[in-house]
Amino acid sequence: MYRDRWPSQLLKNTVEELSSLPGVGSRSALRFALHLLRQPQENVERLGNSILRLRRESLYCRECNMISDTEVCKICNDSGRDRGCICVVESVRDVISIENTMQYNGLYHVLGGIISPMDGVGPSDLSISKLRERVQKEDVTEVFMALSTTMEGETTAYYLYRILQGTGVHISTIARGIGFGDELEYTDEVTLGRSIQNRQPFDPVNNK
Amino acid sequence: MYRDRWPSQLLKNTVEELSSLPGVGSRSALRFALHLLRQPQENVERLGNSILRLRRESLYCRECNMISDTEVCKICNDSGRDRGCICVVESVRDVISIENTMQYNGLYHVLGGIISPMDGVGPSDLSISKLRERVQKEDVTEVFMALSTTMEGETTAYYLYRILQGTGVHISTIARGIGFGDELEYTDEVTLGRSIQNRQPFDPVNNK
Repeated sequence: MYRDRWPSQLLKNTVEELSSLPGVGSRSALRFALHLLRQPQENVERLGNSILRLRRESLYCRECNMISDTEVCKICNDSGRDRGCICVVESVRDVISIENTMQYNGLYHVLGGIISPMDGVGPSDLSISKLRERVQKEDVTEVFMALSTTMEGETTAYYLYRILQGTGVHISTIARGIGFGDELEYTDEVTLGRSIQNRQPFDPVNNK
Repeated sequence: MYRDRWPSQLLKNTVEELSSLPGVGSRSALRFALHLLRQPQENVERLGNSILRLRRESLYCRECNMISDTEVCKICNDSGRDRGCICVVESVRDVISIENTMQYNGLYHVLGGIISPMDGVGPSDLSISKLRERVQKEDVTEVFMALSTTMEGETTAYYLYRILQGTGVHISTIARGIGFGDELEYTDEVTLGRSIQNRQPFDPVNNK
């Protein structure tokens, strides 16, 4: 859109690069660039360098594949964590989301994707054999799958179930049901049906 | 929001820096950072370096204050431009917007802001004396004010009018009226009233 007669090659380059960020169009990219021009030099240096360092220096934990500053991540190294439970997630972002709930104190395993034949992602593209190895080698009693409730998520969950079946580990999955604040009227039939099948004892203390 | 138990200091720093961009919250910043982690190293280098170079190397044209790679910008240097007309705008972004219309072939003058007593911006904070100098020194026949139709824009336009009054230059302003695609019913009374006062001869060829 802002391609014609650019006043400055530096501005043009920056706008083009910023437009590569997800959900950022040329208009937002221009807004970001002009904002950066108005900031003190040191702030812009901090931003630019943090981006460069992130990509250059970030490691992935050799145990769980989580992004980490060290070879083994903070969570895998934390002796206060329940080492008997591994939560399997699709991506780094899911770990951060679950950590933010403060409701989980076990370890993680980041698959690095989800089985999706449409996108050409098969089981061998994911960190599945590593997961099986961890389950067999370590003292793991439960594998807790926190995957999306999409077709791909369900396929991956079923595949993991088959792979882990013989190991004797307890396999669980996050609860599906009606989200807090959702209205029954607008809930789809599959979710509503499953929520009825999986109805739980009423707990007047934690029911909030 | 994502403050607790960060898995990586590098990620945390980058998210914090990216959150300083206008309209970017911690959620989008995290999305950007995780996206960057998945990109090839050279793409991230290009982004980081273009941000650093933009702020380090950008100049502002010594004639019109437009952002530029050189001391005098491409527009001021362009011999194909009408040097008799100066379009006065608030910011660099306005120049880019006007250039994109391809409807203007004169020079510019970037004020670097707008008179706004509420924000502590007075005439002396803007590049106004430089504008007067240009009008007197160069062969300028028209000053064309393309300012916002806000209270601040109107105040600035009136101030410029008073400053330039004695120079004999023709002073014009962008047309106000009803935008293309707007419905009369939803147009405010001031705009509608002005559009009636300033009604124009109907031109069946360009009326689109």
